[in-house]
Amino acid sequence: MRASLAAIARRPRATLAPVPAENSADDPAAAQALAVRCAETMYGNDAASQALGITIDGVSPGTARARMTVRADMLNGHGICHGGYVFTLADTAFAFACNTYDDVTVAAGADVAFLAPVAADTELVAVATERTRRGRSGLYDVTVTSSADEVVAEFRGRSRSLGRPLL
Amino acid sequence: MRASLAAIARRPRATLAPVPAENSADDPAAAQALAVRCAETMYGNDAASQALGITIDGVSPGTARARMTVRADMLNGHGICHGGYVFTLADTAFAFACNTYDDVTVAAGADVAFLAPVAADTELVAVATERTRRGRSGLYDVTVTSSADEVVAEFRGRSRSLGRPLL
Amino acid sequence: MRASLAAIARRPRATLAPVPAENSADDPAAAQALAVRCAETMYGNDAASQALGITIDGVSPGTARARMTVRADMLNGHGICHGGYVFTLADTAFAFACNTYDDVTVAAGADVAFLAPVAADTELVAVATERTRRGRSGLYDVTVTSSADEVVAEFRGRSRSLGRPLL
Amino acid sequence: MRASLAAIARRPRATLAPVPAENSADDPAAAQALAVRCAETMYGNDAASQALGITIDGVSPGTARARMTVRADMLNGHGICHGGYVFTLADTAFAFACNTYDDVTVAAGADVAFLAPVAADTELVAVATERTRRGRSGLYDVTVTSSADEVVAEFRGRSRSLGRPLL
Repeated sequence: MRASLAAIARRPRATLAPVPAENSADDPAAAQALAVRCAETMYGNDAASQALGITIDGVSPGTARARMTVRADMLNGHGICHGGYVFTLADTAFAFACNTYDDVTVAAGADVAFLAPVAADTELVAVATERTRRGRSGLYDVTVTSSADEVVAEFRGRSRSLGRPLL
Repeated sequence: MRASLAAIARRPRATLAPVPAENSADDPAAAQALAVRCAETMYGNDAASQALGITIDGVSPGTARARMTVRADMLNGHGICHGGYVFTLADTAFAFACNTYDDVTVAAGADVAFLAPVAADTELVAVATERTRRGRSGLYDVTVTSSADEVVAEFRGRSRSLGRPLL
Repeated sequence: MRASLAAIARRPRATLAPVPAENSADDPAAAQALAVRCAETMYGNDAASQALGITIDGVSPGTARARMTVRADMLNGHGICHGGYVFTLADTAFAFACNTYDDVTVAAGADVAFLAPVAADTELVAVATERTRRGRSGLYDVTVTSSADEVVAEFRGRSRSLGRPLL
Repeated sequence: MRASLAAIARRPRATLAPVPAENSADDPAAAQALAVRCAETMYGNDAASQALGITIDGVSPGTARARMTVRADMLNGHGICHGGYVFTLADTAFAFACNTYDDVTVAAGADVAFLAPVAADTELVAVATERTRRGRSGLYDVTVTSSADEVVAEFRGRSRSLGRPLL
């Protein structure tokens, strides 16, 4: 069973497999450590993600990877995963990615394209990467893939930082 | 306590308060009856919406109104309702609105703007209206309002019909 | 031939047919006069809209109606109006609508759905209405219709005010 | 001065510098040759792109790079490039990228984020890459950069193929 980020945090840091960052600061190691601390703090308080069984595989500055298995109570009237849950997983990866700088950042909006239906018991992985960040605004792309390596959704989130520390 | 659509369906039809339809067919009463039957069928199978406590106030051809109260397990790391649940409520209203014609219709995508944070215990109402429908494609606007009559999100869904009956 | 806004501005104000405002301020007449002055100032400086033959039929607080005829030099490789020009007309209506409050406002982004091809010589009309405005952010819906009363595009613009006067 | 694609086409093919393709078919050279032929055909008929001074630097299966210099007649009422022209350049790159398979493909819609104002005389470059293509639907990301290497817009286009040959 996949460990939650909280569990990951208790391991030696070397076991973390961060998503490669393209926008590392002057001190990449410090930026990475800050990103992990932000994610741990966020996750510990995130009742929604925990209740959905979402786990965070790892983060790095501007990126995050989240994971969720589709449960029976996530199926819609067509017998496939409710798009809302696919969105929620992507939105979670987005939230962790844009909150890696110790600057509280919220979602201003997002666009999602649903590309394939998702059956029960599928394990979904959402990888969020930063496309641009400028002043208080950012854009993050999230690709959601099924265990069969099929892309099931593409998401683009618009973030807005509040200018106050997260930690 | 608000009744689910299933409960509503057991009442005499006259108690339904449908959202006014702008695109009623030649026989508005038949179109309305069809819309209600589609919604009842959808809701009965929709484990996700039921598990979230979402209820459907009413539907009419191309429209739907859905309702959900924000629970403690829907709060994110910032202590407010996870945007994924606001999206999910809007997406549910969208799904019921675009499935009122007895033609199985799925979400191809959606854009959402998050306009205000939503606190725990807030009752949210999502009203979906059809903006356009042409061939197999449609656009639906959904406004999500809090119990304090504040607009908390604006959603625009892109639908795609599969060309087979729902009932 | 349709008069430009500059020409309209020279007429007695009573000839203006403003789009009905839903969010008029305490003094609707003053708000309307301000909206018209903003539009006149914008249009006078707007080389792009003028060069495209775009005219502004009228504005009111939060709304605008713009018009453009598709020229031969606006056709793309498929022999229909380049989507960029349909977008540009919608974006112009959006810009005039969100700049009716004497607060310089720019487009942060937009989504457009192209619903029908547009042939040469078609006269397009874009009607922009304000969906929401809160702090410095706003959402505006623009419907683009052809002379045959067919909706050819639906646009939703995201605005951001700069907090400084336009006039 | 940059050559148009038509001019490029007259040069020996080896001088083309195609954007690297990630989804090349079984015969990459044939796929590349097909992409170039599609682009040449498109460009030759594209009065809009030609009139705007847009040139196509190169294409490969699923990708395209387009270029345009902001003229005085492209400035809006704020004295900066009208967002419609930034969109139009991105939309052109998108159109050339999604029409590289000899299957007529049109834009169903797009989202654009405007990230920085663009001054007169700026040379803009738009690079379109395919994010996903499945059945008749595709998603393409376009980044628009200024001569100062600043990202000024991010665009995501939704394509729909018509299932008939372009050539």
